[in-house]
Amino acid sequence: MSASARDLQAYLEDAIPLVSAMGVSAITADRDRVVLAAPLTPNTNHQSTAFGGSVAGLATLACWGWLWTALRTHGIQGRLVVARSEIDYLKAVTTDFTSTCTAPGEVEATTFLRTLERRGRARIALTATVEDSGGVVCARFSGNFVAHRGD
Amino acid sequence: MSASARDLQAYLEDAIPLVSAMGVSAITADRDRVVLAAPLTPNTNHQSTAFGGSVAGLATLACWGWLWTALRTHGIQGRLVVARSEIDYLKAVTTDFTSTCTAPGEVEATTFLRTLERRGRARIALTATVEDSGGVVCARFSGNFVAHRGD
Repeated sequence: MSASARDLQAYLEDAIPLVSAMGVSAITADRDRVVLAAPLTPNTNHQSTAFGGSVAGLATLACWGWLWTALRTHGIQGRLVVARSEIDYLKAVTTDFTSTCTAPGEVEATTFLRTLERRGRARIALTATVEDSGGVVCARFSGNFVAHRGD
Repeated sequence: MSASARDLQAYLEDAIPLVSAMGVSAITADRDRVVLAAPLTPNTNHQSTAFGGSVAGLATLACWGWLWTALRTHGIQGRLVVARSEIDYLKAVTTDFTSTCTAPGEVEATTFLRTLERRGRARIALTATVEDSGGVVCARFSGNFVAHRGD
């Protein structure tokens, strides 16, 4: 785990009690992507597969974590909220699982950060996948996030 | 709390560990609607408002709970899974909150149950709202659910 992944995990655990209940750990957190992992056991449902709420929650956290990392890298203080999201559940998750948010294109990321600095508010669309332990994509998530400058 | 709400809560708590971590309680579970409640404290985020994953999770559970109740009322055994969902976060949740899934139209509900009995598999679109303690709608959720007959 990198220093920035450790920082992200510490922040999430401190801020969101459900992160500990879900057993979320940050594997990677850099400008290219954020990868979060969760064990199946505390996140199971009635079928002994992963509960949809846990799957969507982990993907939400991966995208939110990418934004948090991007703002921190650029020394910008901001509040980040999810405004809208959708998720397609493609396959039941039967193992421990991960969610990966890959950075948006360079243009989108730069526009987002510049808009936030100039106007104090900016929106960005992010996507994440959820994979099982064999690397099979089990869900596709997309969300619109809003950042406000300041604490 | 009605007997059917007690049964739904017992089932959810037994099947999904996160239900207890979120502090979910079933208020109403009948043919017209399912209402689930969650306290803010175990579901907060970095802003001391409700974590998006908890808000979406409670709405997912409300819709899932309505389907579970409908199948049980009709004496049908089935597996229920969420296939797709979307959620609009309209307003930050700053209090304990509830999610209400209102029954779809009579035609949709009847078609769903008949299709499930005849073909062993059926889909249905359901919606739920998430309200704060003042009754203000803070999020709108919609999801496509799939039922398979059998255990």
